[in-house]
Amino acid sequence: MKAARPATAQTLTDLGEDRLVARLTHGLALDRDVLHGPGDDCAVVGQPRDKYWQLLKTDMLVEGIHFLAGEDPRRIGWKALCRAISDIAAMGGIPRHALITLAAPSSTPVARIVAVYTGLEKAARQFGVSIVGGETSRSPGPLFLSVALTGRVERNCCVLRSGGQAGDALYVTGRLGGSLAGKHLDFSPRLAEARWLVTHFKPRAMMDLSDGLASDLPRLAAASGCGYEILHEQLPLNPGSTAEQALSDGEDYELLLAVGPKKATALERAWKRKFPRLLLTRIGQLTARPKTRARKIPRGYDHFA
Amino acid sequence: MKAARPATAQTLTDLGEDRLVARLTHGLALDRDVLHGPGDDCAVVGQPRDKYWQLLKTDMLVEGIHFLAGEDPRRIGWKALCRAISDIAAMGGIPRHALITLAAPSSTPVARIVAVYTGLEKAARQFGVSIVGGETSRSPGPLFLSVALTGRVERNCCVLRSGGQAGDALYVTGRLGGSLAGKHLDFSPRLAEARWLVTHFKPRAMMDLSDGLASDLPRLAAASGCGYEILHEQLPLNPGSTAEQALSDGEDYELLLAVGPKKATALERAWKRKFPRLLLTRIGQLTARPKTRARKIPRGYDHFA
Repeated sequence: MKAARPATAQTLTDLGEDRLVARLTHGLALDRDVLHGPGDDCAVVGQPRDKYWQLLKTDMLVEGIHFLAGEDPRRIGWKALCRAISDIAAMGGIPRHALITLAAPSSTPVARIVAVYTGLEKAARQFGVSIVGGETSRSPGPLFLSVALTGRVERNCCVLRSGGQAGDALYVTGRLGGSLAGKHLDFSPRLAEARWLVTHFKPRAMMDLSDGLASDLPRLAAASGCGYEILHEQLPLNPGSTAEQALSDGEDYELLLAVGPKKATALERAWKRKFPRLLLTRIGQLTARPKTRARKIPRGYDHFA
Repeated sequence: MKAARPATAQTLTDLGEDRLVARLTHGLALDRDVLHGPGDDCAVVGQPRDKYWQLLKTDMLVEGIHFLAGEDPRRIGWKALCRAISDIAAMGGIPRHALITLAAPSSTPVARIVAVYTGLEKAARQFGVSIVGGETSRSPGPLFLSVALTGRVERNCCVLRSGGQAGDALYVTGRLGGSLAGKHLDFSPRLAEARWLVTHFKPRAMMDLSDGLASDLPRLAAASGCGYEILHEQLPLNPGSTAEQALSDGEDYELLLAVGPKKATALERAWKRKFPRLLLTRIGQLTARPKTRARKIPRGYDHFA
């Protein structure tokens, strides 16, 4: 396991993120109170008949990967917490308690770290999160910022990726593509929208779009045992983005949801009344089994590619 | 907040770890269900009269800081989870659900990451923890491994750092010093011992020794509004360690506890019967107010020093 290793050893790049995660989480021993372990936006723990279940999520930002060294540290803090809030929202839950892990070189100006916390606190206040603790450490390299977040969801409101059925209408909130122009640092997690959805038109499956529709939709479809069809011409594009960018840029942090077809019309009407300034776009449907896609779509973001 | 900054800007090294944490956590908005926020081994959340409270902890290991690049990855995984378990134990709690955050260069052999997980899983099985999720990311620098861990503690068993009183006897478990010889990667968190203590001789204050007695005891005493006296000649030393090393090497992961003086004799007797192979040593007492220490002791570990 130590230094000496054949030059042909498989690296993380060779394996890719999804297969690495599958390999690491395969066969983990889980207690009976783990209702859903690795594989969804959050883990779900509790007893099956509890009124509330707990959601658990961790998410990290690495300097040079998720943001550039010169970036405004307040935006980094905002993004770090909002990414985790987006995952809690995508399960139908309410975020509650956050722990912050931060590693930075000793030479880092205190003001930079304080500003990261300013961004974290702004997001915490806006979305009702309490930052209850964390850890700081020296880093010999880049700045690392990791957020662990708990959430709570009524048992009846919890939405997984795996509940979709063939024929379900697929929707996305907002517009996709072009996040790197700045939106990836300033986005608002769709917490209010997700809570409204799970209490009024409970989706059968839902997730947040972090790696791009082209990576995330196949994950939702596979978890649901379905295929999918996308209406490419329907994709809601951010100004200046192409359909390809909307599919694969990633970091949209919009919701992707599957809704029973009978609910579709009522949902669209009610959404327009409730959220008149935010698009909800029907982009396709889940199918009975993996079909050949109408058009080959590029893959979304892979952390090790 | 961006690039341009006066050359005299205060850095993390100037400020030091404790003052940085105090500054970052000062004035955080906390919900009413946060019973104890930053400042103890874990955060405590719940309602005051709940039978059980939840404990939340995050802890990280950084390559080049907490372990060397050539280290056996299984030991790194073991250490990462056991450090967090040690903090749950120090509150009197039982660890439950862990989330793992891992960042590594793309060129890292898959086998190395799998071996980190082998160590994590070994610790999880041994101490009854479920690894319920996590995240992997690319790192442009060293390997980073962060563990977020939840725990549960009966309200009546929860022990903080702040409950100590003048006259309380101070104890440590095991032996101190010399952790760098290897023990820091192989230690066993004192989970069974802490659970026995809180259910039989509930300490007034307790914490785990991660930065060395010379750093950690002043923290416990200050949290309790007390001073302290140490009997230096009583310190239980690991073979080959000096008293100075026992005070300041850090990474002992033993328990430090304050017990009402009337319980002391009964505790010592009962401990010997229950844990005949592990020392419990009376090393001094809490005092009414900060006294001049009998001997100047070197400081323990500071992450930014």
